[in-house]
Amino acid sequence: MKEISGNTRLFGILADPIHHVKTPQRMNEHFARIGFDGVCVPFHVRPDGLADAVAALRRLNNLGGVIVTMPHKTAILELVDEASPVARAIGAANVVRRDPDGRLVAHMLDGEGFVRGLIEAGVAPQGKSAYLAGAGGAANAIGFALVQAGVSRLTIANRTVAKAEDLKQRILSLHPGADIAIGTPDPSGHDLVVNGTSLGMKPDDALPLDTQRLTPDQLVCEVIMQPRDTALLLAAQARGCKVHYGAPMLACQIELMAQMLGVPDAA
Amino acid sequence: MKEISGNTRLFGILADPIHHVKTPQRMNEHFARIGFDGVCVPFHVRPDGLADAVAALRRLNNLGGVIVTMPHKTAILELVDEASPVARAIGAANVVRRDPDGRLVAHMLDGEGFVRGLIEAGVAPQGKSAYLAGAGGAANAIGFALVQAGVSRLTIANRTVAKAEDLKQRILSLHPGADIAIGTPDPSGHDLVVNGTSLGMKPDDALPLDTQRLTPDQLVCEVIMQPRDTALLLAAQARGCKVHYGAPMLACQIELMAQMLGVPDAA
Repeated sequence: MKEISGNTRLFGILADPIHHVKTPQRMNEHFARIGFDGVCVPFHVRPDGLADAVAALRRLNNLGGVIVTMPHKTAILELVDEASPVARAIGAANVVRRDPDGRLVAHMLDGEGFVRGLIEAGVAPQGKSAYLAGAGGAANAIGFALVQAGVSRLTIANRTVAKAEDLKQRILSLHPGADIAIGTPDPSGHDLVVNGTSLGMKPDDALPLDTQRLTPDQLVCEVIMQPRDTALLLAAQARGCKVHYGAPMLACQIELMAQMLGVPDAA
Repeated sequence: MKEISGNTRLFGILADPIHHVKTPQRMNEHFARIGFDGVCVPFHVRPDGLADAVAALRRLNNLGGVIVTMPHKTAILELVDEASPVARAIGAANVVRRDPDGRLVAHMLDGEGFVRGLIEAGVAPQGKSAYLAGAGGAANAIGFALVQAGVSRLTIANRTVAKAEDLKQRILSLHPGADIAIGTPDPSGHDLVVNGTSLGMKPDDALPLDTQRLTPDQLVCEVIMQPRDTALLLAAQARGCKVHYGAPMLACQIELMAQMLGVPDAA
């Protein structure tokens, strides 16, 4: 990273809690690699402060934009001027570009990042069956992206079934031929098992699914980056499953995020 | 500076324009020197965006506070919850601490920084006569601090005379015995000549005072840091005066600012 000066372009990550975020590190590494005079810093904003914080983003003239993560990915959509079609369909965004006139444009790259991460790990989702725990922001992104990537069928399991059904219907509206079912905590019978909830960030969180039903042929995937070894992944390994960590989802989308935020590919 | 992470404490500088600011560099050097996990970044905010920006400062839970510079030093006072007595008397602030509950407390350190810079350069203001161009934020701070430091007399010159008179009366309210006059563009007859205006930042700015009247026995002082050699200082040197650059005013108050913002002296 270059020395921060008055010319340095500013980027942030909106999150609550903030301690676990890895975006500043990854984005600043990216800036250093390409020689770009920018800096990405943490913006710790609670849900009740999000509207005020976003109003200020319009006013920060040297701000290129922000990365948005839990718990703001859904709420942010109501606060921006424009959202990409996929972000609207998903109902969540994880990157907001600030145009020079202060206009805020939201995009969602989580799903694409997750699928890229799988592919780079040698696991093309095409033709595989997938189980998805959760129906919130990250799960929405992954659900859309898995269907877009050609999974043979997708099972969505969420404590509030209506939210899972809603996600199913929204995916079907864009992909009418998709095979989508509403599931239970039991993930058996799927090639890919994905945690798309935030359960596992805190030590005393419940498990996002019934790990007793995991079988060794399954690949168990996490969206949580911190801790790296969530209770889900530890249980999955104990049952002989292969695991896919949360980090690649972010790592594989840093460059995509930077492009969305107007950072040149090389500075 | 340490690697920026989710744990990094955030600080900013509010300014418009922003390119010339040196606070991020100096503050980040200070953080590195003391091993503190903090980062100071530029916040480019225009006057009509200041209220929105300040509303957001309350909402940034990992923000320690902000440095405030032109043109926001006066307007900021209306937007904070509390100001130190000297900031209220001066009518301007250059540092705003964010308390953990979001409360914003303003202070003014410019004057103290300027006087410290003079003293470290071997020029104790005590007993010297001083000419001050300007009656805005920086000039206010310097006027109060020069009288506090014991100048024998202070002449305030400002295009709008009423503003100079107002500053004089406010200084007198805190220092009833001070010898304060309202001046003209002619700085002759003073030991110290100080530019407290922003004239000199832009290449086509008018001079802040009549440089034809400078004499070689005078020390001509600048508050502008960028450019280092303002038209005023170049003209002063051409007339045989010694000069005092704008940088020490900031350099001498970085530690004071950090203390005000809750940064420990050593991390």
